[in-house]
Formats: sequence, structure tokens, C-alpha cells
Amino acid sequence: IALISMSPAKLLLTGYVSYMLIGWVLLSLPVAQQVPVSPLDALFIATSAVSTTGLVSVDPGGSFTLFGEIVIILLIQAGGLGYMTIGSFATLAILGKLPGMRARTTKHAFNLPEHIRPGHFVVWVVVFTLIAETIGALALWPMFAAAGEPNALWLAIFHSISAFCTAGFSLFSTSFEGYAGHAGINIVISALSILGAMGFLIVVDTWRTLTAQRRWLGFSSKVIVRMTLLFLIVGTAVLFVVEPSINALPPVERLLAAFFQTMTATTTVGFNTMPIGAMSLAALMLFFFLMIIGASPAGTGGGLKTTSFAALVGLVRSTLKGRDEIRYLKRRVPLDRLQLAASSLAFYLVLAGLAMFFLFLTEPGAAFEVVMFEVISAMGTVGLSMGITGDLSPLGKLIIIVLMTAGRVGILTFGIAIASHDESREEEQDNELVL
Amino acid sequence: IALISMSPAKLLLTGYVSYMLIGWVLLSLPVAQQVPVSPLDALFIATSAVSTTGLVSVDPGGSFTLFGEIVIILLIQAGGLGYMTIGSFATLAILGKLPGMRARTTKHAFNLPEHIRPGHFVVWVVVFTLIAETIGALALWPMFAAAGEPNALWLAIFHSISAFCTAGFSLFSTSFEGYAGHAGINIVISALSILGAMGFLIVVDTWRTLTAQRRWLGFSSKVIVRMTLLFLIVGTAVLFVVEPSINALPPVERLLAAFFQTMTATTTVGFNTMPIGAMSLAALMLFFFLMIIGASPAGTGGGLKTTSFAALVGLVRSTLKGRDEIRYLKRRVPLDRLQLAASSLAFYLVLAGLAMFFLFLTEPGAAFEVVMFEVISAMGTVGLSMGITGDLSPLGKLIIIVLMTAGRVGILTFGIAIASHDESREEEQDNELVL
Ligand SMILES: [K+]
Ligand SMILES: [K+]
Repeated sequence: IALISMSPAKLLLTGYVSYMLIGWVLLSLPVAQQVPVSPLDALFIATSAVSTTGLVSVDPGGSFTLFGEIVIILLIQAGGLGYMTIGSFATLAILGKLPGMRARTTKHAFNLPEHIRPGHFVVWVVVFTLIAETIGALALWPMFAAAGEPNALWLAIFHSISAFCTAGFSLFSTSFEGYAGHAGINIVISALSILGAMGFLIVVDTWRTLTAQRRWLGFSSKVIVRMTLLFLIVGTAVLFVVEPSINALPPVERLLAAFFQTMTATTTVGFNTMPIGAMSLAALMLFFFLMIIGASPAGTGGGLKTTSFAALVGLVRSTLKGRDEIRYLKRRVPLDRLQLAASSLAFYLVLAGLAMFFLFLTEPGAAFEVVMFEVISAMGTVGLSMGITGDLSPLGKLIIIVLMTAGRVGILTFGIAIASHDESREEEQDNELVL
Repeated sequence: IALISMSPAKLLLTGYVSYMLIGWVLLSLPVAQQVPVSPLDALFIATSAVSTTGLVSVDPGGSFTLFGEIVIILLIQAGGLGYMTIGSFATLAILGKLPGMRARTTKHAFNLPEHIRPGHFVVWVVVFTLIAETIGALALWPMFAAAGEPNALWLAIFHSISAFCTAGFSLFSTSFEGYAGHAGINIVISALSILGAMGFLIVVDTWRTLTAQRRWLGFSSKVIVRMTLLFLIVGTAVLFVVEPSINALPPVERLLAAFFQTMTATTTVGFNTMPIGAMSLAALMLFFFLMIIGASPAGTGGGLKTTSFAALVGLVRSTLKGRDEIRYLKRRVPLDRLQLAASSLAFYLVLAGLAMFFLFLTEPGAAFEVVMFEVISAMGTVGLSMGITGDLSPLGKLIIIVLMTAGRVGILTFGIAIASHDESREEEQDNELVL
């Protein structure tokens, strides 16, 4: 009864928090732990998994048993697909249709246009996810086996799911740094991450176009594909030229490393093949830019989203050129999209600033850019780190847990959910004061 | 003839650049220099003075002669009042009224409402400025004399103008660090800076209210006064509690130092009584926040402006609470104000990000937060520094020169001025492509 009266934003947040708590309990069981993991670290890993961030306060490969690893990958899968997708699917299978409230929540979480039927959407999402992850795992398996990894099949399944859900959890203690020069693994992981980050809408849209049906999302798809390609190309070029640790590599490895590090930031997957803590400050600026914007809506990635960025680009260009309406790619950007984009950016800055302020107090020894990187990585559910995560104080870990949750639910949705407010009473009060 | 066809934004930028070039020539004369000053440093100082920033690549007190110092303070006065105010005043005295184009430029620079007559405004501004600066100088003179300063009168005049124009240029090599515990000097400098930063509109509005005339700007004044007080109180409290170098002082000096350092950031005056380079990272976050928002419109200060911040606060709160219209202090915020505020913020971030990226390449040894501080200080025409200014490479100095100019003209006006664009042709093209 209380659930029915909840706003979609509160419902979403409650759902994610429920998954985190279930994960926390399961990862706290002795059967899940290879070495003792503190309750706070278990909560941190559960939150990181459900939010598909991939920041780790303890090494997952070395700290958890196979049971623990299965719990982690199921949390990632649940978080990546979205709890409402799975829930909706189960409901759909039983009842044959989606209840109204759940349908609203699904639309809210994925930013769906009004005329899409959530039932169909959920089926497509799940089928598409399973197919992509299976192909990914089958492609990774022989490569891990050939590289002499002991549990090649499990590694292939785990990393395929972790990549497609843009979670970036790795069972290797140094992520993919051991495979920095392995083109095959780089390409498969990148393909899975980009597919996950671009979102299901692109695939649906492409399929509908190919089968000559009416396209729902021509313009959104165009923006998403264009932005994704732009960021990948510009980012790779910048890192290729600017970053000394990548400069020093032979040409093919250099291109591979520049591309993979760009890909990992813009898709918010968070795997890495080069040590991030050793990057130059100019390279960090590129990472900040890519991680703040993040991935695309209706995908598994985080950040402010490429479509919000496009709306802001349209806003600034239109203002600078003195246009009356805001346009992007010759199309008028609706006012409510602009409001959402501008509010997200402003609220993002406030949240990031407050988090950094408090982290500088709780982590007195940490460098400025290292803390800033951790905050932006958590808020964008990226999971890249300059190496501070394991050394955070308990309060610091709690701050990052809140940021990962906010990043997954969506910065603005998080704000809406925690802004408990009786609107009708406020409205009345206003009228009195204005009169 | 070319001037008449220019947009107000281009005219403003051209005006400021003209003043910089005149200042550059004058400061390059041997008669202005006590010790040899390089052409780049002379340009840097001239730009810093006209933009009322106060960043200095060489120590003004030790590098220039009295003639040079007079040039600097005249550049500050010209920049602070705005070149169009002085120009308009001169024209007004001769012709008895303001030409249309000049009037539009004045309104553009000061963000004035449409129904204010620029002629009257300019007279008030100049009279008010001279009165405030005279009172300030008369108050500082005996205090400097009592402290045993050799040129007490000149020091009083120079620092009074520098404070009221929120320029922050000081003839003391360590700004006001030598007077950190001197309550009288702290209070006079703070009063001048706050008056300059709040803007003439507040004074005009207060005067009209007192004389029972119709108030033009009731709401803007309310926002400006409220924001200024809020930032001063919250900032002082935060620095009082959080900053170790201020914590360590005895109670009265501690309060004075916390207040003065907050005041200097929020008014963008840029004097300091404590070494900024030794501040903790948490204190830096407060400085970043205050310097990015900056002072109030129609004042002498820089930054995104308190009224833009209020509009953004209204935007975020209204979005989070699901309101249909954007309100602040129970008042509807007009859409064009919101568009300006959101565009300014987004463009500010892009410009700051690009500047930091290039500075990390030109200044390889510099720390992240030190470069970030310099960029935000220049863009907000604050002039506080963690001590890198004098050590910048020639390219680094040029980047800061561009940022100070952008900060003074206004970030968005700067963007409009450099976005040379034939709008009508673009419109035609659009229609073709959309059809
Ligand atoms: K991730
Ligand atoms: K200043």
C-alpha cells in the first residue's frame, strides 16, 4: 500500500537499495568470503556491483569465493538490466501485462518516450542482453584459455557480463593491464561495453529501420551514435598524442591503449589496460570530461548522458549565436529536455563539490585530483580509480557508497527521491505570500 | 562606420582590448619601470588591471615607478567603471544625451533592465564611485601613517580605488598579510570591496526607496543582498571551523581572517591576509565555489554572478520538486534569464576545462589544484593565487590573459563576441535541410 503511493523516483531508489541490502547480506556470509571482508567493505562491493560502478575497496578476485563471485555477477546483471526490467518481465510472464505503476517506473528509469510499450521493451532488453553476453563469453573463452588462465570459461562469462553491464568488475587484480597488448580481448571487451553503453534503443531502432517499420527514435539514435563516435575518436586522438605513458608504447599498442582508455571512460565500463594513477594531469582532464558526460540513456552506463550533453551544446550555441530557439543538429530541443539537462548539470556540480569538500576532511593525506577522480568516477558509475579506494576511511567509503547509488539511480532522480516535499501545501503558502 | 555595425558584445570586447593595448604601451615605457619588465609581463599587468583581476606576474610595488603605478590605478578605474560608462559620461556632458548604440552597449555590459536611462545611471555611478573612493582613502590614510608606511597618502588612494573596483592590486608584495590582525584596515577594505561588488543598483535602489520613489529593482536587490550576506556568513563559518592555518589564530584574529578570506573570494576583490598557497584542500573547495559564482551584476566584480546562481538554484529546486514553473523566493524566474544562467555555467565549464587542459601541457610541474585555482581566479577576475603566476611559461601567461579578458567582458559576452557568425545565412540553410 505504501509502495503504490510512492513516486516513481522513490520507488526506483528503494528498489536499488533493496538489491544492495540483499547483496550485502549474501556477501557477508562466510561461504562467500575467501579471506575475512569487513561489513563495510561487503556493503561497498554490493553497492558497487548493483550500481555497476566497479570501484572496489577489496580485490574481488582474491577476497571472495566462487559463490561470492556468482553473487557479485548476479548483482551486476540485476543492476545493469535494472531491477524494474527483471521485475516487469516476471510480472509480464505471469499476468500477461504490466501494471500501470511499474510501467511508469520503467519509463522513468529509461527515459522512454510515452508511446513505447514497456512490456515489449522488457522482452527485447532481456533477449538482447543474453545474446550479447553469450556471444561475448564464447569469444573471450578461447582467448583466456590460450593465454593459460586456469578458469577460462568462468573468467569469460564473468567479464562478458561485467563488460556488457558496463560494471568494470574484474577478477584480475590489475583489471586488464595484463592484456594491454592483446588486440582480441581489447576488441571484444570494447564491443560489449559500447553496445551496453549505447543502449537497447539503438539496437531496437536499427532493427525497426532494417525491417522497414516506423522508427521511434530516429533523432535520439542519431545523437547517440554521433556522440559516441565523436567521443571515441577525439578521446583516442588526445590520449595518443598527449599522454606520456601511452606515447612511449610501440604504434599498435599505443593506438590500442589510447582507444581502450577512452572507451572505458566514455562507456563508463571502468576496465583499464594502463595504470590510471600514473596518468598525466592533461589526460585526467580528458577522463573528467568523458566521465562527467558518460554514456547514453536507456543503456547500462552512467553519467549525465550524451543526450543531455547534446542539449547543453545546443543551448550554449544558440545563446552565443542569439537564436530564439534552442536547436541541435537542425532540430528544436524541447524546453523540458533543456530543463532536465541544465538541472542535472547544476545538481551534479553541487553534489560533486560537497562530496569533495567532505572527502578532503575525511582523507587528509589524499591529493586533490585523486579525490576528484574518485568522486567523478563514482557519480558516473565508471569505477576507474587512481588507487585510493582501498585506503579510504570508513566515512570516505560511505560517501562513495552514496555517490555510486546517486550515479546509478540518476543524479536528478536521486535528488527528486530525497527531496521529500509536500508540494500542495507549499503552493498554498506561496499564494498567500504573493497576494 | 565599422563600429556602428558591430554587435554590442564585439564593441565591449574591442573597448576592453583597446584599453589593454594603451596600458601595455604606457607600462612598456622606460619611465614606468623601476626594474626591467618584459613586454609579456607588461601586457599581463595591463590586462590584469583593466580586467580588475589582480593576478600579477611581477610585483607591481617593486617593478614600476610612481608613473607606472598611476597608469595601473587609472587602468583599474577605467576597467572598474567600465569603458562605456566613462565614454558615455563624456559624450553626455558634450551632447546632453546618449547615442543609441552606446546606450545599448551600456545596458548590455551592466545587464540593465530596459527602462533605465543610461545617462542618469552613468552620472550616479561616477559620483558614487568618487565619493566611496574618497571616503575610503581618507579612512585608510591615517591608519597607514600610524603603521609607519612611508607614502601613506598614495597607499591609501591606490588601495581604496583598487578595493572599490575589486581589482585587488596591492603595492605590498604580500598583499595585506602584514595587516592580518589590523581590524580597521580589514573593515575599510572589506566595506569598499562589498560596496563595489554588490553594485550601484543596490545603492540606487536603496536611495529611491528612502526617497519614496518607485523602485526599479526590488527583486534583484533582494536577491543580491540576500546572496551576499549568505555567502559572507556561511563562508566565514566554514573557514573558521575547517581551515587549519586560520584555526590556529587567537579568536579575534581567527574571525577576522575567516571573514576577510571569504570576503575576498565572494567579492572577487582578491586581496588576502593569509597565504592562499598554504590553505587546506577543503578550504580550496570553498574558494572555488565562491569564486565561480562571484559578485553581483552591475557591480565591479566578476564571476557567473549571484543572480545567475539564484536562477540556477530556482531551476534545480523546481525540477527536483516537480514544479511547472521555475521560481526563486516565490517569484517566477523568466525563461531568458534561466537560459543565460544555464548557458553561462555550461560555457564557463568548457572554457575552464580547456584552459586547464592546455595549462597542464604548458606547465608540466604544476599541481592540479594550483592550476585550477589560477584558472578560476582569472575567469572570475578575482586575482587570488596559490603562487604560480610569476612562474608561468609565456604560453601559460597568454592563456591567463585570455581568461582575464573573458572574465571581465563576461564569459557569455566573450563567447558571443568571438562567435563570428552570419545568422541569416545559417537560417536559410537550415530550412533547406529540414525540408
Ligand atoms: K562501471
Ligand atoms: K580582483
